[in-house]
Amino acid sequence: MEVFDCVRRRRTVREYKPDQIPEELVLKLLQAGRWSPSSSNSQPWHFIAIQDPETIKRLGEIATQGTFMANAPLIMAIVIAADSVRPQLDAGRALQQMELVGWSEGLGTCFVGVRQAEQQKAVKELLGIPEEMELITLMPYGYRVPGARGRGIPRKPMAEIAHRDRFGQPFQE
Amino acid sequence: MEVFDCVRRRRTVREYKPDQIPEELVLKLLQAGRWSPSSSNSQPWHFIAIQDPETIKRLGEIATQGTFMANAPLIMAIVIAADSVRPQLDAGRALQQMELVGWSEGLGTCFVGVRQAEQQKAVKELLGIPEEMELITLMPYGYRVPGARGRGIPRKPMAEIAHRDRFGQPFQE
Repeated sequence: MEVFDCVRRRRTVREYKPDQIPEELVLKLLQAGRWSPSSSNSQPWHFIAIQDPETIKRLGEIATQGTFMANAPLIMAIVIAADSVRPQLDAGRALQQMELVGWSEGLGTCFVGVRQAEQQKAVKELLGIPEEMELITLMPYGYRVPGARGRGIPRKPMAEIAHRDRFGQPFQE
Repeated sequence: MEVFDCVRRRRTVREYKPDQIPEELVLKLLQAGRWSPSSSNSQPWHFIAIQDPETIKRLGEIATQGTFMANAPLIMAIVIAADSVRPQLDAGRALQQMELVGWSEGLGTCFVGVRQAEQQKAVKELLGIPEEMELITLMPYGYRVPGARGRGIPRKPMAEIAHRDRFGQPFQE
């Protein structure tokens, strides 16, 4: 799949086929994160590829804002080292590469934040994540259900968010 | 270009051909940012596509850590609204989509942070960015110079950053 097509067609997906994701593709997702650029090439990330059914079920119970993840065959936990300079930004770059590679291979995913302190604690305990590290997200992955293409949430008009040379000069298409 | 190939081949680029980037491709970069997912679909971003030579020269002078950007035909400033829930993460997702689309079209870029308060102020003044907004980065874009492929900075071994089911259980390839 062409890169721009992938960016343009991608949708957030909360419904997954139960089919297992082949090892080779799990590895490709991990490589997509691993090859992301990062601040001063610090590579501050850890990725936990979770396929154990019991752990997946438990994560769906803990993360009440993302209960649908209990039905995914794979959850990618993204964790950032404590001494990272730009934890959120570097995580965002890596997880977006993963999402796009996943989409190009027939998978869908959805960012699930784990913001509440109680949930963070429970997930970290379950997954053995060192306390000082930052759990950024749990991203369930699965093959997309045919037909369930996603709504394609509208975007703001280009002229509202894109400027030419100077803020406030709309970039007219 | 296939998505995974793009992710795998992409390098950070600090040297650009002087050739102007066609309007259509500038628009594609903006679309790549615009179609990025964001927290609660908040779309908190603004993109300033800077092609005015005087402004580009001035940005290269202000951002002393990225003087090479003075030689780029385009600089994309990425700005995030003040009330954003996850400014850095959402910016990271959008700029990574832009970088990958750019790479697939023959362009290269490099993240330049503008961290010092003095520099932030000077750039915001020059570009007319509202004070309360967050300037995330200035990303110079240009066509890649043939042969200057980039070093391909080594990555940490997979087993060091990828875990299976639980932190500390290495994901063996």
